[in-house]
Amino acid sequence: MGMVGGGLDAFIGAVHRRAAVFDHEIELVCGSFSASPEKSRRTGQSLYLPDDRIYDSFEEMIQREKELPEGERMDFVSIVTPNHLHFPPAKMALENGFHVICDKPMTLNLQEAKELAQIVEKSGLVFALTHNYTGYPMVKEAREIVRSGKLGTIRKVVVEYPQGWLSKYEEGNDYKQAIWRTDPARSGAAGCMGDIGTHAENLAEYITGLKIDELCADLTTFVPGRLLDDDGNVLLRFDSGAKGVLHASQISNGEENSLKIFVYGELGGLEWHQMEPNTLHYKSQEGHRLLRPNVGEMSPAAKAHIRLPAGHPEGFFEAFANIYRNFAYAVKAHMNGEQLDPVYDFPSAQDGVRGLAFIETVLASNKSAEKWTKFIQ
Amino acid sequence: MGMVGGGLDAFIGAVHRRAAVFDHEIELVCGSFSASPEKSRRTGQSLYLPDDRIYDSFEEMIQREKELPEGERMDFVSIVTPNHLHFPPAKMALENGFHVICDKPMTLNLQEAKELAQIVEKSGLVFALTHNYTGYPMVKEAREIVRSGKLGTIRKVVVEYPQGWLSKYEEGNDYKQAIWRTDPARSGAAGCMGDIGTHAENLAEYITGLKIDELCADLTTFVPGRLLDDDGNVLLRFDSGAKGVLHASQISNGEENSLKIFVYGELGGLEWHQMEPNTLHYKSQEGHRLLRPNVGEMSPAAKAHIRLPAGHPEGFFEAFANIYRNFAYAVKAHMNGEQLDPVYDFPSAQDGVRGLAFIETVLASNKSAEKWTKFIQ
Amino acid sequence: MGMVGGGLDAFIGAVHRRAAVFDHEIELVCGSFSASPEKSRRTGQSLYLPDDRIYDSFEEMIQREKELPEGERMDFVSIVTPNHLHFPPAKMALENGFHVICDKPMTLNLQEAKELAQIVEKSGLVFALTHNYTGYPMVKEAREIVRSGKLGTIRKVVVEYPQGWLSKYEEGNDYKQAIWRTDPARSGAAGCMGDIGTHAENLAEYITGLKIDELCADLTTFVPGRLLDDDGNVLLRFDSGAKGVLHASQISNGEENSLKIFVYGELGGLEWHQMEPNTLHYKSQEGHRLLRPNVGEMSPAAKAHIRLPAGHPEGFFEAFANIYRNFAYAVKAHMNGEQLDPVYDFPSAQDGVRGLAFIETVLASNKSAEKWTKFIQ
Amino acid sequence: MGMVGGGLDAFIGAVHRRAAVFDHEIELVCGSFSASPEKSRRTGQSLYLPDDRIYDSFEEMIQREKELPEGERMDFVSIVTPNHLHFPPAKMALENGFHVICDKPMTLNLQEAKELAQIVEKSGLVFALTHNYTGYPMVKEAREIVRSGKLGTIRKVVVEYPQGWLSKYEEGNDYKQAIWRTDPARSGAAGCMGDIGTHAENLAEYITGLKIDELCADLTTFVPGRLLDDDGNVLLRFDSGAKGVLHASQISNGEENSLKIFVYGELGGLEWHQMEPNTLHYKSQEGHRLLRPNVGEMSPAAKAHIRLPAGHPEGFFEAFANIYRNFAYAVKAHMNGEQLDPVYDFPSAQDGVRGLAFIETVLASNKSAEKWTKFIQ
Repeated sequence: MGMVGGGLDAFIGAVHRRAAVFDHEIELVCGSFSASPEKSRRTGQSLYLPDDRIYDSFEEMIQREKELPEGERMDFVSIVTPNHLHFPPAKMALENGFHVICDKPMTLNLQEAKELAQIVEKSGLVFALTHNYTGYPMVKEAREIVRSGKLGTIRKVVVEYPQGWLSKYEEGNDYKQAIWRTDPARSGAAGCMGDIGTHAENLAEYITGLKIDELCADLTTFVPGRLLDDDGNVLLRFDSGAKGVLHASQISNGEENSLKIFVYGELGGLEWHQMEPNTLHYKSQEGHRLLRPNVGEMSPAAKAHIRLPAGHPEGFFEAFANIYRNFAYAVKAHMNGEQLDPVYDFPSAQDGVRGLAFIETVLASNKSAEKWTKFIQ
Repeated sequence: MGMVGGGLDAFIGAVHRRAAVFDHEIELVCGSFSASPEKSRRTGQSLYLPDDRIYDSFEEMIQREKELPEGERMDFVSIVTPNHLHFPPAKMALENGFHVICDKPMTLNLQEAKELAQIVEKSGLVFALTHNYTGYPMVKEAREIVRSGKLGTIRKVVVEYPQGWLSKYEEGNDYKQAIWRTDPARSGAAGCMGDIGTHAENLAEYITGLKIDELCADLTTFVPGRLLDDDGNVLLRFDSGAKGVLHASQISNGEENSLKIFVYGELGGLEWHQMEPNTLHYKSQEGHRLLRPNVGEMSPAAKAHIRLPAGHPEGFFEAFANIYRNFAYAVKAHMNGEQLDPVYDFPSAQDGVRGLAFIETVLASNKSAEKWTKFIQ
Repeated sequence: MGMVGGGLDAFIGAVHRRAAVFDHEIELVCGSFSASPEKSRRTGQSLYLPDDRIYDSFEEMIQREKELPEGERMDFVSIVTPNHLHFPPAKMALENGFHVICDKPMTLNLQEAKELAQIVEKSGLVFALTHNYTGYPMVKEAREIVRSGKLGTIRKVVVEYPQGWLSKYEEGNDYKQAIWRTDPARSGAAGCMGDIGTHAENLAEYITGLKIDELCADLTTFVPGRLLDDDGNVLLRFDSGAKGVLHASQISNGEENSLKIFVYGELGGLEWHQMEPNTLHYKSQEGHRLLRPNVGEMSPAAKAHIRLPAGHPEGFFEAFANIYRNFAYAVKAHMNGEQLDPVYDFPSAQDGVRGLAFIETVLASNKSAEKWTKFIQ
Repeated sequence: MGMVGGGLDAFIGAVHRRAAVFDHEIELVCGSFSASPEKSRRTGQSLYLPDDRIYDSFEEMIQREKELPEGERMDFVSIVTPNHLHFPPAKMALENGFHVICDKPMTLNLQEAKELAQIVEKSGLVFALTHNYTGYPMVKEAREIVRSGKLGTIRKVVVEYPQGWLSKYEEGNDYKQAIWRTDPARSGAAGCMGDIGTHAENLAEYITGLKIDELCADLTTFVPGRLLDDDGNVLLRFDSGAKGVLHASQISNGEENSLKIFVYGELGGLEWHQMEPNTLHYKSQEGHRLLRPNVGEMSPAAKAHIRLPAGHPEGFFEAFANIYRNFAYAVKAHMNGEQLDPVYDFPSAQDGVRGLAFIETVLASNKSAEKWTKFIQ
């Protein structure tokens, strides 16, 4: 693995690195960790990389690695930069024969996303998007329960993602995470909706298998001086006729990272909270069950993403690692010309396109005086 | 107290009766418990009422009680009939000098509600509406925290009220509670939104002190054959600029009676769940506190509605009884020409008007292609 | 109902009164509410009793009520005094033909308890002890699950009752509840173990149907100046071979009233918390279910003690009212010469004897250097 | 790092490996993974180790690695074998100049433990014991709160560790984890008390800083045919005068891995559950706070063990990794002749001695007819 971005003080780069090595399938062999060559160097050294595998730019990295003999060069590129720097390295990596795993949202805008999806398709290479919340085993179990038909036809979906960390003007406080996420040039046209609204959208579509067909959005920027939305409330209509609500916020003061989803069907309902990720509530008028990893029967899809016996909590890193491990399996299968067992799934470039389409639809709806805006294709 | 409605198999009548006597301030002295005189009689007898205080109709009750000497006659009327039968007895009682406590929604439609509010005002009598969820002590505490300014300006409110009991066509099953609640003639023009949506609206306005200014609603009838909405999702805009989401449902399969509210301000947030009513979550970026009855400091308003030491759970009946007790105090104060301490508050006819206006606004918005519909005054 | 004790500032008297009238089966007709005639009078008047039914002493009350015509006199006596004043009025009431419902522990010591149990038996009258925690519907459900054999043979029971309200020397603070409960003359030879340890013992035996056979206790008085134990830890061995732990405390700082029980059998386990009384956890290696009132199937014994639909929380008062209502049914059945359906159960004088025997065994064990002390019969 | 034990189907070996590499401080360079050379080979290969660093026995590994040039050879040995195979490789490693990190309990019996502690001391090398539950950040925070004096003098400690996975005779089912843990030759003289009772003992002493002074134990083997205890209940007395209860079980049917601790002082109390490890309850008569990673103020000791922003759950692996990372820091400090910041703590050989002493004291007490048995030194 060669990494683009993830300098020493970047939050998500360190997450990717831990997730990547977690299952002993992936080794970090090189990187271009920062726009600052000096910082890239310091980062690489702290990770015990040899000097000649620490690069000044992603262009250099891709070029030079390609020149290395097969077996020595990196197998894939991991992109963990701010949003505006996803597309260029992804494109170049794919066009030079490297598989890609990329942070979300996939690109800065929908046009880039569509172009990237085409490049992926043409390349025949493996591409993964780290919508990491789909890596939780109980999220897999939720999807399997929906697929099994046990809930009957899905009628209603509520997905909420409140955070409180941007309740003040943190971007004025030399707070790196806040600064780029509230900067349209680096984050894209949406703030809260791009950063976490897309996770909510992806989770809802992942678990239910439904697609949002039209929506009605009301976005707000509550904190004075902020350039992007920090809160959004959305009514959803799915292609199947199901209805829904999605709301996300960075000004829900006191909330940590409280992604939750509720799915209701004719025959039963599901509830899952990211902050207590090892419990899936399965309810119906007959009773309320707490489904837990390695307790009782469980789908093969969920089991394939659990590493510990019952009662030993796995968390955010492990879910993230599941995405990396499955991607590594896919890369290996690609190398060996094999088919990968579909239990080892991960978000695709198509999911990335939907994420950007969601952002653009939400922004369009927010400006519109009409109630419903069709999901942009 | 004389009761209108609440025959033997009525759910809410029995709740009102227990709530009324709970604090030894109120005695049931007469009633007209059913449209069927025979059932009214059986109900009254099971409650150990003398035969001559069991009436065949509310008209008879009000007439005959008025003829009794002061001190013997009932002091007030409690109305616990289906919605279409709130207005007539309330009007007649008030016009004959009896105070009134009435179940919600206040009337069958907004026009009746406005007329009743005028009658109340003209009469100078005491009128209470049993929006019972505002009787919980931790709801009082939430309101006091908002009032104190500890949360700063309120930015966002999420109120949700999922139930699952109407997931099937229960009105076809000789299920009395389901039958009248899904019948427009008795329930009014809204189903779910009238029955529980109004509770959510009332709770949000009660705790925050804000008024909904405009909204955008999407209502659905999921169960085939049903005549009224059984699910609704609403975007809210408050007069202060705060935003919100309200959703309510009777088809959220597996949910019991899961009214929840989340209030976020500049400085902190609150969270309260009706099903665990003795815990109020008070969160901010500085920490997460669980506020509990009789633990640590607490507002006088909350304390005035707690009867037990810490850790002895009070529930639905006690919250309901708080409405009745405060109403009884108000009646007593009225009789004695005294002012009532404002900690003993209860929902008013004006709250009832807002409830019906909410219903009509939601219905109008649901039909509209425009995003925002102004709250009907 | 005639009440002994329960003057205006007594906590438990007010609980008994609300519990008694809750189901419209019982009416308070007279009382001797305090050793102070003046306070008794004020209490009775605040409850709207006629002056001639407010008595100066329980002796006077029993004597004078007996002289009233049948149908006018009280049917039974409710005793809510401190522990040292349970036996005398209970004895006199029974010997004069009145049924008795009495707070726990039944008497001041085991000798009195045994004598009272004999008087009850000889009288043929109805006697109830308000071990109110057995009145919760989910406690009934727990007992029914054990009885059904679904858990297999019970192996282990853990029952814990931590409170923190006596963490300081509250008895020095004019705090009436603290003063009498820490006074051997009024409370008996045990403090914490008598006040709440007996509830834990009763609950464990009630749910499991097992009897403690021997135990090993370590009691402590942590607060300087206190005269009785304020904490106790006990190892249990049941007659069946099951093992257990019981611990109770009044110095577990920050705990409210946190009675909890865990029961483990060969095939599954149960968990119940008094502070969230409407959830019974039913766990096994196959899964974890939350059993809730009126959700799915439920035993007739539990159903008979629920008044509200799912999700409408009932609490401490309602559990207490279940004891009173069942006692009232038993009194009525006694009057009519009928058998009472056994679902309407309540704690008996025999339970009271076991409670006092538990106290004396724990005290004996605490003084002993031997590990095991046989449960005193 | 060279690993002893941890063949392909071993649960804890895989945990150690993930924990070790998690923070990029440690690399697995060699191993002797199984008593079966063939299995050791397969394990090493699956981990991408070169063939010449996969050994047939720990003796071979230590011998051969020692012969490698400094800088190439392993720096330390990680021992993850069943209990009877902890002492021999630990002794040999230390005597050959390798630091050691070892699974718990430290040895098969107290005599070995004392001998090993002396070898560690004489060697001057770094030794860590993986009592992993002390690696959780909120456990660190709990210890810091006790140390700060905010709770005042500690009065009572309750620590409980129920599991249900050995409710049946699993050792008859070719269930490797069950087989060795119930085999006295490999597990030691205690079953449940050795496997998890020692975790409970260690956690209680770690958080409170108190030492158990005497105890009273009642152990049971509930499952027919089992050779070791599968349940134990223990009364504790600490050197400070504090009292406590410790119970642990492998037959608490339906429990997963439910280690919990409750600590009560004069001024407040703490509560922590391993299965929801990111919440520390801090309670007093003034209120109930939920302390959470990276929410509000937090001790440096806790902060040093958190990797993610608030609301991103870390779990079992991360706590384990904290032990490894701190051990790696200590090894590095040792190499560089530096002092390690005491926030990077980990369990020591002395903790290991106390663990074995706890086991032997509990076994002695279980056989004794006397109530109290002094903690064996």
